[in-house]
Amino acid sequence: MKRLFLFAVIIGHVSLLLSQTVLPELKWELAYTKNLTSPPSKFIPATVPGAVQLDIAKAEKYGPYYYAENWKDYGWMEDQYYIYKTSFTKPELKPGQRLVFVSRGIDYQFQIFLNDEKLFEQEGMFTWVKLDLTDKLKSKNELRIVVNPVPKKAPFPVDRSQAANVTKPAVSYAWDWHPRLVPLGIWDETHLEIQPASFVNDVKLNYELSKTFDAAKIKLNISGRNLENVAYSWKLKDAKGNEVLQSSGKFNGNELVIDKELSKPELWWSHDHGTPYLYTSVLEISDNSGVLQTISRKVGFSRIQLVMNEGAWSEPSGFPKTRSNPPAQFMLNGRKIFVKGTNWVNPEIFPGIITRERYNKLLDQAVEANFNIFRVWGGGIVNKESFFELCDEKGILVWQEFPLACNHYPDDPHYLQILEQEATSIINRLREHPSLALWSGGNELFNSWSGMDDQSLPLRLLNSLTLRFTPEVPFIPTSPLMGMGHGNYVFRDPSTKEEVFANMNRSHFTAYTEFGMPSPSSVEILKKIIPEKELWPPKPGTSWESHHAYNAWVGNTWLCEDILNDYFGQAQSLEELVKNGQLLQCEGYKAIFEEARRQKPYCAMALNWCYNEPWPTAANNSIINYPDIPKPAFYAVSNACRPVCTSARLKKFQWREGEEFTADIWLLNDLPKSIDGGTIVVKLVSGNYSAELLKWDFSKTQPNVNIAGPTVRCKIPSLEENTFKLVLECVGHPEYNSEYTMVLRQSAKKAKGTAIMNQ
Amino acid sequence: MKRLFLFAVIIGHVSLLLSQTVLPELKWELAYTKNLTSPPSKFIPATVPGAVQLDIAKAEKYGPYYYAENWKDYGWMEDQYYIYKTSFTKPELKPGQRLVFVSRGIDYQFQIFLNDEKLFEQEGMFTWVKLDLTDKLKSKNELRIVVNPVPKKAPFPVDRSQAANVTKPAVSYAWDWHPRLVPLGIWDETHLEIQPASFVNDVKLNYELSKTFDAAKIKLNISGRNLENVAYSWKLKDAKGNEVLQSSGKFNGNELVIDKELSKPELWWSHDHGTPYLYTSVLEISDNSGVLQTISRKVGFSRIQLVMNEGAWSEPSGFPKTRSNPPAQFMLNGRKIFVKGTNWVNPEIFPGIITRERYNKLLDQAVEANFNIFRVWGGGIVNKESFFELCDEKGILVWQEFPLACNHYPDDPHYLQILEQEATSIINRLREHPSLALWSGGNELFNSWSGMDDQSLPLRLLNSLTLRFTPEVPFIPTSPLMGMGHGNYVFRDPSTKEEVFANMNRSHFTAYTEFGMPSPSSVEILKKIIPEKELWPPKPGTSWESHHAYNAWVGNTWLCEDILNDYFGQAQSLEELVKNGQLLQCEGYKAIFEEARRQKPYCAMALNWCYNEPWPTAANNSIINYPDIPKPAFYAVSNACRPVCTSARLKKFQWREGEEFTADIWLLNDLPKSIDGGTIVVKLVSGNYSAELLKWDFSKTQPNVNIAGPTVRCKIPSLEENTFKLVLECVGHPEYNSEYTMVLRQSAKKAKGTAIMNQ
Repeated sequence: MKRLFLFAVIIGHVSLLLSQTVLPELKWELAYTKNLTSPPSKFIPATVPGAVQLDIAKAEKYGPYYYAENWKDYGWMEDQYYIYKTSFTKPELKPGQRLVFVSRGIDYQFQIFLNDEKLFEQEGMFTWVKLDLTDKLKSKNELRIVVNPVPKKAPFPVDRSQAANVTKPAVSYAWDWHPRLVPLGIWDETHLEIQPASFVNDVKLNYELSKTFDAAKIKLNISGRNLENVAYSWKLKDAKGNEVLQSSGKFNGNELVIDKELSKPELWWSHDHGTPYLYTSVLEISDNSGVLQTISRKVGFSRIQLVMNEGAWSEPSGFPKTRSNPPAQFMLNGRKIFVKGTNWVNPEIFPGIITRERYNKLLDQAVEANFNIFRVWGGGIVNKESFFELCDEKGILVWQEFPLACNHYPDDPHYLQILEQEATSIINRLREHPSLALWSGGNELFNSWSGMDDQSLPLRLLNSLTLRFTPEVPFIPTSPLMGMGHGNYVFRDPSTKEEVFANMNRSHFTAYTEFGMPSPSSVEILKKIIPEKELWPPKPGTSWESHHAYNAWVGNTWLCEDILNDYFGQAQSLEELVKNGQLLQCEGYKAIFEEARRQKPYCAMALNWCYNEPWPTAANNSIINYPDIPKPAFYAVSNACRPVCTSARLKKFQWREGEEFTADIWLLNDLPKSIDGGTIVVKLVSGNYSAELLKWDFSKTQPNVNIAGPTVRCKIPSLEENTFKLVLECVGHPEYNSEYTMVLRQSAKKAKGTAIMNQ
Repeated sequence: MKRLFLFAVIIGHVSLLLSQTVLPELKWELAYTKNLTSPPSKFIPATVPGAVQLDIAKAEKYGPYYYAENWKDYGWMEDQYYIYKTSFTKPELKPGQRLVFVSRGIDYQFQIFLNDEKLFEQEGMFTWVKLDLTDKLKSKNELRIVVNPVPKKAPFPVDRSQAANVTKPAVSYAWDWHPRLVPLGIWDETHLEIQPASFVNDVKLNYELSKTFDAAKIKLNISGRNLENVAYSWKLKDAKGNEVLQSSGKFNGNELVIDKELSKPELWWSHDHGTPYLYTSVLEISDNSGVLQTISRKVGFSRIQLVMNEGAWSEPSGFPKTRSNPPAQFMLNGRKIFVKGTNWVNPEIFPGIITRERYNKLLDQAVEANFNIFRVWGGGIVNKESFFELCDEKGILVWQEFPLACNHYPDDPHYLQILEQEATSIINRLREHPSLALWSGGNELFNSWSGMDDQSLPLRLLNSLTLRFTPEVPFIPTSPLMGMGHGNYVFRDPSTKEEVFANMNRSHFTAYTEFGMPSPSSVEILKKIIPEKELWPPKPGTSWESHHAYNAWVGNTWLCEDILNDYFGQAQSLEELVKNGQLLQCEGYKAIFEEARRQKPYCAMALNWCYNEPWPTAANNSIINYPDIPKPAFYAVSNACRPVCTSARLKKFQWREGEEFTADIWLLNDLPKSIDGGTIVVKLVSGNYSAELLKWDFSKTQPNVNIAGPTVRCKIPSLEENTFKLVLECVGHPEYNSEYTMVLRQSAKKAKGTAIMNQ
C-alpha cells in the first residue's frame, strides 16, 4: 500500500483544522537579554502573534521602522535572547482530556519551559508546535518560550549569506528592496486548547481523478486516539451545501479509511478559466454525550501538470545534441493555460502582523490585475493558512518555493535535517489546497551568485520529499531552469543601453518567470517615509537610498534618474520625477507582458518582479505600494493581461521626426474559446493630431490562440507635443483597445524638457 | 538516526557475498509452450545460467544466430512460456539449518513452484531471488520456474517501444547495431544453499572520509538470525594482508554495529591517477562447533563528486538570464579529472553467457585504451558482479545507468512499483563498489525521441532512491543534460556535409558523453558472418543490412559508402573498402577525443559511442569487434587518450594542391603533474616527401593543463601520393608523438582511385 500510495493523485489534508476547545487568550510578556546566564528582570507587554522588535518598539517608543532611517535603530535587537512568558491556571479537565499548547509558528530557534522545566526545543519557524502539557500541570502555571538571537552563518558579511544554513527567509537579512530587519518571535496563531478524550488528530483526504475528469475516487484516512466505538459521520457537500457523498458508522480502533467515488465532480479552475469550485468535507465524531469534534475543510478537485512547451521538443537541432528544455507549460484539468502573474513577496517585514484581511485585499487586486498565478518567492516566508484558503476561493494558482534564495545552502547534515523537518511540515500543510500548482526548491539557486547545482543535496531532498507526499504536484529545483528567463529589471540596460523592447523582442524563452520595471513611489508615500528636508532633490546617502532609490541593485537603481533624464530631461519637481518614472514602469511592463504573450505557445508564462512590497519603498519594481496601494503600472499590467486584447510590438521608446515608425499589430487571446472576427483601427495620436495608419480585418481566432496581424509603417510626423501614442481600437469592442505612449526627441529648438504626464 | 544516515557518506555493502554451503550443481531441463493450459511434454537440456533461445538452438540444431540472417529464425521464441525444471533430494539439515534457493537473475516475469505449489513470483530480472524452501521440502523435490513470454507494450510496433513499461533492457528489442533477439530465462548464478542456524544475512560497511582524506570513520551494520551469544571477529586488512583494524566479541541480539576509525587510509584512484587501492573486510562468526560463516569483501576509500565545469558559472550572460549548465566535471578525491572513456554495451546478446573472463579481457583493453571511465549505457543490462569487482581492481570508474533508454517510461503505478523494486536492488548491490562514480536515470530521456522530462515520476523516483541509499554518489536523470553533447555519429553529416573536424571545432560543451565514428569490421569477421555469395560487393537487403551496414541509423549508415566513395573513389575490393572505412574511423575518433581534450577545462569528458558490441556487426561505431577484437580505431583512440601527447586541431580531411593548410598545435596534459618544457617539430610527410613546417619550444606545463601552441601554415605541395600526414614529433619524447592522415584530391589527370592504406 505504501508504495502504491506514492503514485495516487493526492490532495486534501484536513488534519490541521480540528475543532477543539480553545482556552481564553493568553496574556504574554516579553524580556530580552544579551546573555541567558543573566536573566532579565524587566518584562514588557507582548503581542502574540507579532515580533519581538514590534513589542520593544512599542514599549520603548522607537520611531516607526519605515520612516527615514529609523530601521537602523533596530539593529541591536538581532543579538538578544528573548523570553516570552505567560501564566495560566490549570483548567478543569475531564477524564482523558488533554491540555495542549499549540503554536503555528515560532521564529526561529527556541525552547519551551513549563514551570521552569524544559519540555521542548525546535529549530525552524514553519513546523507547528503541539505540546501536550497535561501531565506536567500545576494549579498555577508559567509557560516560557526562550527564543535565540538571529542565526548568522559565520564568517559571512552582514548580508543574506548569513542565512545560508537556515530555513529562515533570507530576505530579512537585507535585499535590494528590503531593509535589514530580521524578525524573531511568535509569528502565527498560538493558544492553549483542551482536546477531548476521544480525539481525531489527523484526517487526510486523497483523491484520484479519472483521466476524463468524470469521477473522483476519494480516500479519507482518519486517525486519532481512544476512538474505539466512537461514532463518525462524514459528508461531502457541494458549494450550495447539498450533500453529495456521505458515510457513517463507528470506529473499530483508532484508524479509519473511507472510500467513496464522486461522479461528475465540478472541477476547480483558476478564475480566468472557470469557477474555482470548492466542496466542503465535514467529519463529526460523537458519543452518547453528543458531538465530540467537528472537522471541516474545503476540497477542490483538479489536475495540475507542467508539460513541454510547444516547439520545445524540436530544439536543439543538429549535433552534438544536448537535451531539450525542461517543461514550463502549465496544464490545468487537461487544458494548457498561459499563466500571467507575479512574484509575491512578504507583505510585511514582520510576518507576525499579516492578517487575513491584508491577504484578502492583495488577492482581490491580483484578480483585478488578471493574474492567475503567484510565484511565492523563496526569499520570503511560506504564507499563513488564510493566504492559501483565499487563493483556493479566488482561483489563483500558487507556485510555492521553499525558503532558499540566492545562497549556497550546504550538504550539511544539520541543515539537511532541519530542511527535511520544515519541508515536510510545509508540504503536509499545503498539499490539500487546490491552488497549489508547483513546488520549487527556491530562487535562482542554479546561478553563479548562489552556486548550488543539480547535485546539491538540499534540492535532491526537496525533490524526494515532494515526490513522496505530493507526486501529483510538479516540482522544479529552482527558477530559472534552462529556457526560463529572469530579468531584465530596468527599462534600459545600464551597460548595453538596450531598451526593454529590443531586449524582449529578441528573447526566446519558455517562460519569463521574473522581470522587473522600477518606478518611484507616489509623492504621498514618499512624503510619509522621507523627511521633508531630504525630499527634494533626491540624493544618495539619504533616506532615499535606505528606501532603495539608489544603489539598490546594479547601476543606478531603482530610481534610475539617468534614464529618466535621458528621455525627459532633468525633472523640475518631485511630482514630475514620479510621473516620468511611473510612465516608464507602465510602458515597460506592458512591453514585457505583451511580448511574452505574443511568444505563446512556445512561451507559457509571464510573471513580473514583483507584486507587492513589505514596507514603503522610495522606488521599486513592485506594482503595488505598501501596504496595498496600486501604482499606475498596476492598471497598465492589468490591461496587458486582459484575456483578450489588441497588442503592438514596438521597437523602441524614443523617436525623431521623419523616422520610419513600425509596429507589429496583434490580437491576443488566452481564453479557451474563439473570438469572432472584427476590425482593428490603428492610429497615431498626439495632442490634437490623429492619423489612421491601418485598418486590419482579422478573422475568427482559434481558442487560446493569438493572431499576428500586419505591420504598420509611417514617417513620424512633425508634432507639437513631446509624446505620442499608438492607439489600437477594436471596432465594437472597446474592451480590447490598447495604447502605447512613446516620446519624441524634439529638435533642439523645440525641446522644452517638460514633464510627460502619464494618464 | 535514520535521517542522519541519509547524509552519511556510505559505501561498502557486503551483504551479497555470504559464505554458505552450496549444494551440488542442479541439472536443469527446459520446455516451452504457447499456452500454459497445454503443458509441454518434451523437455530439453538447459544450461543455467543461459537463455532459453540458446538451449533450443542447441537441442534443435539452429544455425548460429550471428551468421547471415539466422537470427530471424529465433523470432517465434519471444512468444512462448518456458518451464525450467530440476529435481533434487532433500539434503540432511541440522536443527535450525535452512535450505534456500538463490538466483541472481531470472529474465523477466516468472513464477517458482516447488512440488507443484507456487511459492513465489516476480517481475524484474535484477532483483535476486532468495527463497527459503525448508518448510515445504519432501524427500524428493521438483523445482519449476515458469517464465512468461517477452513483455511487449501494446499497441506499439515491433521495436524498442515495446519495452517502454518494463525494466528489461530495451536494446534487445532491436537497435541500430543490435538485432531483434530478446533473451529470456535464468541469466545469472543460481543454486541451492544450506544456511546455518545462526546466520548473518546482511552486512553493510559505510564510511565517512574526513575532508582532508586523512581518516575514514567506518560503520559496520550486521544483522541476521539466531545470533545471540554467537562470537564474531571482524578484520580490515590492507592490500598486503596486514590487519589494520579489528573488532571481536559476542552478539547481543540479532544486530550489531561496529564503529572504527581508519587513520590515513590509502585512497582508491582510477588507474591513470594513482593506485586503485583495495582493503579487505573479513567477518567471521563462530560458536563452540567452530566457524559458522565467513563474509569477505573488498573495500575502497574514495570520494567522487560532480562539480561545476570551469567557466560554466559565467554563462549565460545578459538578460533575461536563464540558469547555468549543470555540473559535468568529475572530482575524485578532491582532484578534478578529465574523464576519457567509452559507452559500454552488452558484450553478448544473451547476458547469461557473459563470463568473468570476457569482462576481464574487455577491461584490460580499456586500460590499454587509456580509458578511465565506462558509461554503462541504459539500453543494456546492469552487469554481473564480476564486472564491478574487476572495475574496482583495475581502477576504472563506472557511470551506471538504470535500464531506461529512448522510450517514454510512464507515470504508471505498476511500472513505478517494479522500477522501485529493481532500482533498489541495483543500488544496494552496487553501492559498495569504489568504482561506482555516477548514477544516471537512463539514455537520452530528455530528447524528443524519448519524450520524458523533468516531471517524469520514474526519474524523480530514481533521484529519490539514489539519494536515500547512496547520497555520496552523484545522480543525473539522463544523458545528455544541458551542456552535454551526444553525437555526431558519422565522419561527415549526411545533410549538412559538415565534417567531424569543423563540427567539433565549433562545439562548446561541458562533456561529450557520446560520439561515434563508424567503420566496417575486419575482412576476417565479415567472412564469418556474411555468406560468401553476398560478400562482394556489399548490398542492402542482404546480411550486410542485417548486420547494420545499411539503413541502421539516419542516412546510409554504418557502412557509409557514399562518404568513402567521395574521398577515396569506388573501392575495388572488400579489403580496400574495409581499409578506407577504418581509416576514417581512426581519424574521426582522434579528431573528437583530442578536440574534447583541447576544450578542457570547460569540457571535462569525452566518451565515444561505443566500446564493444554484442555480436559481430558488419559495420558499427564500436572500436572493438565482437567478442574482443580491437579495430584499428582502438589503437588510434588509445593514442588520442594518452595522458600526455602532442595534438593538432585540423580543419578538414581533404585538401588540394596549392591550398593553404593550417593546423593548431597543442600539448595535452591530463596528468596531475607538470611536464617539462621541450620542443615539438611539425612536419608534412607524404611518401618520400617530408617538409618541416615548424619547431615549437614549449615551456613547462602546469599540472593537468594543456598548452595551446602556434598555428602552422603552408601551401599544400605537389605530391605523388593520394594521402599525406601531419606529423608531430616531441624531441626526446617519442611517446608524445602524434600523426594525422589526410587525403589529397588529385587533379583529374593524377586521380587513380587507389586505396588509402591505413597504418
